[in-house]
Amino acid sequence: MKACGLIVEYNPFHNGHAYHIQEAKKVSNADCMIAIMSGSFLQRGEPAIIDKFHRTKAAISAGIDIVLELPYVFAVQNSDIFAKGAVLSLNELGVSSICFGSESGNISYFIKSYENYKEKEPIFKNILKSRLAEGMSFPEASKLAYQEIGLTNKELDLAQPNNILGFSYVKAIMDNQLPIEPLTIERTKNNFHDQMITDKIASATSIRKNLIDMNQLTEEITKAIPNATINQLEHYKKLANIWHTWEHYFHLLHYRVMTMSKEELREIHGVTEGIENRIKNAAKQANSLYEWIELVKTKRYTWTRIQRIFVHILTNTTKKDIEPIIHSQKIPYTRILGLTNRGRKFLNTRKKDISTPIITSFNRETNQMLEMEERATHAYLSILNPDTRRKLFQQELRAPIISETEKD
Amino acid sequence: MKACGLIVEYNPFHNGHAYHIQEAKKVSNADCMIAIMSGSFLQRGEPAIIDKFHRTKAAISAGIDIVLELPYVFAVQNSDIFAKGAVLSLNELGVSSICFGSESGNISYFIKSYENYKEKEPIFKNILKSRLAEGMSFPEASKLAYQEIGLTNKELDLAQPNNILGFSYVKAIMDNQLPIEPLTIERTKNNFHDQMITDKIASATSIRKNLIDMNQLTEEITKAIPNATINQLEHYKKLANIWHTWEHYFHLLHYRVMTMSKEELREIHGVTEGIENRIKNAAKQANSLYEWIELVKTKRYTWTRIQRIFVHILTNTTKKDIEPIIHSQKIPYTRILGLTNRGRKFLNTRKKDISTPIITSFNRETNQMLEMEERATHAYLSILNPDTRRKLFQQELRAPIISETEKD
Repeated sequence: MKACGLIVEYNPFHNGHAYHIQEAKKVSNADCMIAIMSGSFLQRGEPAIIDKFHRTKAAISAGIDIVLELPYVFAVQNSDIFAKGAVLSLNELGVSSICFGSESGNISYFIKSYENYKEKEPIFKNILKSRLAEGMSFPEASKLAYQEIGLTNKELDLAQPNNILGFSYVKAIMDNQLPIEPLTIERTKNNFHDQMITDKIASATSIRKNLIDMNQLTEEITKAIPNATINQLEHYKKLANIWHTWEHYFHLLHYRVMTMSKEELREIHGVTEGIENRIKNAAKQANSLYEWIELVKTKRYTWTRIQRIFVHILTNTTKKDIEPIIHSQKIPYTRILGLTNRGRKFLNTRKKDISTPIITSFNRETNQMLEMEERATHAYLSILNPDTRRKLFQQELRAPIISETEKD
Repeated sequence: MKACGLIVEYNPFHNGHAYHIQEAKKVSNADCMIAIMSGSFLQRGEPAIIDKFHRTKAAISAGIDIVLELPYVFAVQNSDIFAKGAVLSLNELGVSSICFGSESGNISYFIKSYENYKEKEPIFKNILKSRLAEGMSFPEASKLAYQEIGLTNKELDLAQPNNILGFSYVKAIMDNQLPIEPLTIERTKNNFHDQMITDKIASATSIRKNLIDMNQLTEEITKAIPNATINQLEHYKKLANIWHTWEHYFHLLHYRVMTMSKEELREIHGVTEGIENRIKNAAKQANSLYEWIELVKTKRYTWTRIQRIFVHILTNTTKKDIEPIIHSQKIPYTRILGLTNRGRKFLNTRKKDISTPIITSFNRETNQMLEMEERATHAYLSILNPDTRRKLFQQELRAPIISETEKD
């Protein structure tokens, strides 16, 4: 059996994602589709709109055979660390290829860029370093560094954030010399940040905005997402009474920051260079999370970077927790959130070659490894009433989701 | 000028407290009444029903000339540490006497008991130690130890919790050989834990219960409290929309415990002997704070002791924060929450003899000293909306309250 890996957030799963699966199947010629998905909190430092298991169910309905959870330690990070965690996890399961969406849909552009990049890597790193030292933000500094080493050609413009994640995937595969073929398919029409929903394809950003603003499933939305997502969004709302947004966590984060010393804040992953002072001072004035981030933001500390720090404060994740793992060349474990019969068959053929622990649920042995995951999930569920959060946490203990429709 | 000290919580201030002030004035023959009052959280490990400044105003209206804040580090503690902090603070201000309520109203009983106790202190401590080692709670173990050394005579039965606080005050005065005369007046009729409100005197416990249950000021209550308290309770409710109870903090405490490691829990003041495991496990089942404490409670860990631990978790107060201070023979500072003209005059006569810093508000110099106080207040206010908590915190920065009616 042959597997293809996808790196996803499915926040929520929409028609563009369904298209991605279908096209990835074609180009990879794989029999098993494996998605590695962020759990409670996402790469840009936001809570997922519904929990990981409801998103897993929607993914399985749409043709994914195995849903892995990208460990928290990689999930709420910049694109390079995020990509490294995801790619190493998929490699652990023995995927033959990884397929991602891009503007061009042409993988050779990425490979050529990677080769150019490697030639000039020392120069790139020097420029990056000095730009950062000047107080520039990481995205701005790397944009400039890519420009200066000439990686802003028409074929693949690395000054465009859209192309960065794909490039990070290719870099993680090539740098680690993994036996994985990188594949890409052309993105469908709408731009990533486009907030207007048109036709049957809409970005996850615009879908989330509409869901939160309208606080219900409008006709516009239901056109852009498969039935399984409609069901999962409705089911979650019925259970939890909300779709999660950052504002729901404002009072918890505020309480936490106001009862932490600056020394404790400095121990949190991502808190450097005195940003703890800005966070503390702004907390006194902010009436909302939005206002708080606006007050903390600087040229160097972008909105996204602050959101990630806020997630790490909320989940009480320290540098000591994260650093040994992200600097290692091995992932700590592989956790399965859901699978189909076909997924199970694939896993059986691979079992003997998988060297990291495969985790299917919390128990005496896995508790230690899943500690950060557990904290993140508890923080995620903390805004719900006791009964609901207990019910939702039960699935963590019982995971994975087994597909009800046997697809093979 | 001559001052008399009272050790109080005023949660809320009621007619019994007014009677206490009036009688204390008589027996002490003092011109200045100084009350040392717990701030946001109280001795038994509970949040105050309204904030410290609203309680301060009621106290000043009733004849108190200076309201001091008992530092958090002493306020949420067993009776001996509570008494030590309060008595040393009052001594710092140079009170001639300290007057407390008791069943008998006869100070010689306390002094005789103290003398008997001192004779048998080593025996008492041995019994206490071995009873504690058997797994008994501190109140149970000391009750037995008092019985065994014969301090359960009719005149002052130290097996009765009512008498313990008074005894602790006398002990703190005598042990430290302070130039303070201990005085006591007879308590008014109702028992401390009596929940029926009768006549014009009612216990603070019964008043709080009625306020919380009815969620308004009933006729019964208004009979038992002075007008100033009615005004302060109403004013606070208008501002904050609530009167504080522990249940308001359940979600914050739960969030906090679920995102702490057991190692971190063990650093919190009061967490010993594996109680962190019970706290964590019970958190998974509890639907309310009440249920949570019920689940954690053991023979050794009484309800009150767990409530105090919960306050320290909520306020993020560690052993490292507290222990150096409570084991010292000096108080770190004296903080004034409110005063009258007469209070100010008394302070002026004393200024040159006061060796600890006198704090009237938060500023660059006092920030460090008030760090624990600030955390406790932020935790206390965390359940309110941003605008209200900011408004209420302003008074911390502006303190003290200056009496509007000049009483001399």
